[in-house]
Amino acid sequence: MRYAVVGGGKRIRPLLAMASSLAVGGKPEDALDVGCACEFVHCFSLIHDDLPAIDNDDLRRGQPTVHRKFDEATAVLAGDALFALGFETVVRAALPTGVRLACLEQLVAAVGSSGLVGGETMDVHAKGRALGLEHVEQMHAMKTGALFSACCAMGAASGGAGSDLVARLANAGASVGLAFQIADDCLDATSSVSALGKPVRRDQQADRATYPAVLGLEGAKAEAERLITETLPVLGSLPGEAAPLQALAQACAMRGS
Amino acid sequence: MRYAVVGGGKRIRPLLAMASSLAVGGKPEDALDVGCACEFVHCFSLIHDDLPAIDNDDLRRGQPTVHRKFDEATAVLAGDALFALGFETVVRAALPTGVRLACLEQLVAAVGSSGLVGGETMDVHAKGRALGLEHVEQMHAMKTGALFSACCAMGAASGGAGSDLVARLANAGASVGLAFQIADDCLDATSSVSALGKPVRRDQQADRATYPAVLGLEGAKAEAERLITETLPVLGSLPGEAAPLQALAQACAMRGS
Repeated sequence: MRYAVVGGGKRIRPLLAMASSLAVGGKPEDALDVGCACEFVHCFSLIHDDLPAIDNDDLRRGQPTVHRKFDEATAVLAGDALFALGFETVVRAALPTGVRLACLEQLVAAVGSSGLVGGETMDVHAKGRALGLEHVEQMHAMKTGALFSACCAMGAASGGAGSDLVARLANAGASVGLAFQIADDCLDATSSVSALGKPVRRDQQADRATYPAVLGLEGAKAEAERLITETLPVLGSLPGEAAPLQALAQACAMRGS
Repeated sequence: MRYAVVGGGKRIRPLLAMASSLAVGGKPEDALDVGCACEFVHCFSLIHDDLPAIDNDDLRRGQPTVHRKFDEATAVLAGDALFALGFETVVRAALPTGVRLACLEQLVAAVGSSGLVGGETMDVHAKGRALGLEHVEQMHAMKTGALFSACCAMGAASGGAGSDLVARLANAGASVGLAFQIADDCLDATSSVSALGKPVRRDQQADRATYPAVLGLEGAKAEAERLITETLPVLGSLPGEAAPLQALAQACAMRGS
């Protein structure tokens, strides 16, 4: 569990949670617990996605994947335990009872068969098939957008936002997550192993369901930029300090690694 | 997910939750949501435990295991999604906010690295080694006792019990779970495939960490009976109708399948 969590990564999800708290008038550290929970859940999903039966990846964040460093049984169980730790961290968060339950409602909606795990399942079944834009968008919205949405929504709730503001951050987070995934697919299509720290997939070759495969590389990049361009003014209208959240949103869509 | 959940099984954990509600003065159906959550979590753990990298079992409840019926990727992901559904079912339970959070505190304590998943991890590392009684008890307490404890505690909380009563049911559930696991190991040591619906392991041959391996078959059976004999009077002192819970506790220790 420790190897998978502290071995690197950009910490985008906790940063989004903390920036969301700030953007609604809370303090960044109000969202520290829910941010950690998002990172635990994210790392769980990476461990399981990397397994031989799913993506069969040997390298993650420049280091051997958990099943390569240890073994497959350890990878399955460390993933399970990190998933549990994600929930535990929200249940035990230093937040009022109602806020914790509001956060848990966001988290359960994001991670199950209609969110993160369902999106990964769609991805598995999509391998070797050419999907249309609608299916690719749905898959990415579930696989990546849902947890990004929960990060921002839980961050906002932790910072004291009411349900209307939480819903606005949830929508914005979903768009940022989709843009992030599109940028990820574009990187996979153009980068080197040394820049990514993981094996490069030539996803635009249409054997996996990605935006570059459907829209071409330039079309995919334009779609990511469109999503962020639409989201920035929404973030700008929030009652707190939104500049860090806006900067993060832009960085998600225009990534170098 | 459906195949793993509705394909059979004794439903001991939901029954314990509903009987625990009754035993503290609630209605059985008050605990229907938390009981379902326990069964989802239990079925998740079965799917992952059966995987080739862990127990490599082909048969469960008389039918092909999930990875044999479908494939390994589906088994990993269906397990993950059932785990999420367990949490979701408690988060969305038709119970007051404080009760739902009290239940979630029980659930997160039961399922992670110091409970269910941690116990399974100990089991994996124990293979081929002879463990002492202390380690076997700790492993079974985590692997089986913790979730049984949460079933009874969540059932009691759902039935309106305060924290003292919930703690008593949590303790009783842990004992019942340990007795259940000992009886399970005794069955593995003596039964046929047709009675169990899964492959028989000769666990008393000391290549796995079990009570029969440490105490012998008769010693293990005596320990299960001792645990239940100690627990029955505790249950008898509860404010509600405890007879169904007592009958379930006895059935857990003296099982024919």
